[in-house]
Amino acid sequence: MNTGTNGKLITFEGCEGAGKTTVIERVFEWLVSKGYKVMKTREPGGIEIAEQIRSVILDPGHVNMDSRTEALLYAAARRQHLIEKIMPALEEGHIVLCDRFIDSSLAYQGAARGIGMDQVLEINKFAIGPYMPTGTIYLDIKPEIGLQRIRQNDNREINRLDQEKMEFHEKVYNAYHELLEQYPERIHKINAENTLEQVIEETKQHVSNILLKELRL
Amino acid sequence: MNTGTNGKLITFEGCEGAGKTTVIERVFEWLVSKGYKVMKTREPGGIEIAEQIRSVILDPGHVNMDSRTEALLYAAARRQHLIEKIMPALEEGHIVLCDRFIDSSLAYQGAARGIGMDQVLEINKFAIGPYMPTGTIYLDIKPEIGLQRIRQNDNREINRLDQEKMEFHEKVYNAYHELLEQYPERIHKINAENTLEQVIEETKQHVSNILLKELRL
Ligand SMILES: Nc1ncnc2c1ncn2[C@@H]1O[C@H](COP(=O)(O)OP(=O)(O)OP(=O)(O)O)[C@@H](O)[C@H]1O
Ligand SMILES: Nc1ncnc2c1ncn2[C@@H]1O[C@H](COP(=O)(O)OP(=O)(O)OP(=O)(O)O)[C@@H](O)[C@H]1O
Ligand SMILES: [Mg+2]
Ligand SMILES: [Mg+2]
Repeated sequence: MNTGTNGKLITFEGCEGAGKTTVIERVFEWLVSKGYKVMKTREPGGIEIAEQIRSVILDPGHVNMDSRTEALLYAAARRQHLIEKIMPALEEGHIVLCDRFIDSSLAYQGAARGIGMDQVLEINKFAIGPYMPTGTIYLDIKPEIGLQRIRQNDNREINRLDQEKMEFHEKVYNAYHELLEQYPERIHKINAENTLEQVIEETKQHVSNILLKELRL
Repeated sequence: MNTGTNGKLITFEGCEGAGKTTVIERVFEWLVSKGYKVMKTREPGGIEIAEQIRSVILDPGHVNMDSRTEALLYAAARRQHLIEKIMPALEEGHIVLCDRFIDSSLAYQGAARGIGMDQVLEINKFAIGPYMPTGTIYLDIKPEIGLQRIRQNDNREINRLDQEKMEFHEKVYNAYHELLEQYPERIHKINAENTLEQVIEETKQHVSNILLKELRL
């Protein structure tokens, strides 16, 4: 990020059920307790235009939605959320913690939906301009474990339909690993199969490193 | 266009009030009378997803809409209109006449809104893939003359774009002239300040040339 602001943008990524929302909440509380100005958010973040765009994407009646249309809509919602919520917070010097950001589009739309990560990167560069995350916490978990966490209150076995979806989640997982290789400086991998307390401790270490590195520059 | 279909995509471009809608109707009737399979359309073209996207763009309450968000939304609506309406018609061998297409985004979002034509081209390439128009009829008119024509027509509602200042329309006009230089093979300039009958005759000539050239290839 080279934006002339003092704030830092830290994004949280990973497959479903990796623990992003849980961990971000704890990191938020920790940074606040240390006296930092912190904001946590996730797309579409209560921004009216972005909320409307998201409701077009998620409308279950839209079975004809093309994957490129979807990718452009995600990029549009991301742009507006950035402009109206993230940028003002960064300009006020906040550390902004964002639950999913550009890497989710690269993994889900680019890889899993098959558009190609390079092409989805292009439209997302258009959307975010210089606001590439300062650092990214990637919570690494095998999809089947993440999905199990999400449905741990169900007694249901994994059925055939879930198995088909499994292939999709495997693609997301593999894409995150490609991104780790492409952005070794920016993306910090945490083993998210460990206990929550271990994950939080490790995440705090990496967040400290991201902030320290930035302060030294 | 290198899409493996027999259809041809011909787009109509120009400043507001240039005569696009009037001319396209006449060209449509003429081609139908010649026995061609023809379809005329304009974005969002009655495609539900595209209509919903357009209503987000044109909502007069959305004063905070960022110009890049807007450009991404136009590209998304274009993509869905292409997928659901233009592509099937081309595959059935239709000549598709489209009232505004990619060049409008390059001129309005790229140049007039100041994002840059190259960058807006990138996201539109993502949206349309190989479906660059076979040929484009550019109806050339000075913005003040076009806007005068519109003011005399009470049937048309004033939208957000009409309210832009003259300077904005001058930028659009200049951008179309840049595009003419960039795509001399594809874009055919017609003097749209002439009488309607003259404009239609000249347009028919150019449409014939576009179709002949394609048939020879
Ligand atoms: N390290 C952990 N060990 C065990 N359970 C965990 C761990 N981290 C989170 N959980 C639990 O797993 C479930 C999913 O966590 P959470 O909602 O934070 O994941 P997420 O990554 O935000 O998922 P989503 O992609 O659906 O938003 C929650 O019930 C949470 O309490
Ligand atoms: N060559 C012409 N000479 C005089 N008037 C014309 C000519 N062509 C069109 N008009 C009139 O100008 C007005 C605008 O034409 P039209 O709606 O076709 O333009 P348009 O390019 O589609 O505009 P918009 O960008 O607003 O869609 C109409 O009232 C039409 O009858
Ligand atoms: Mg979550
Ligand atoms: Mg018109």
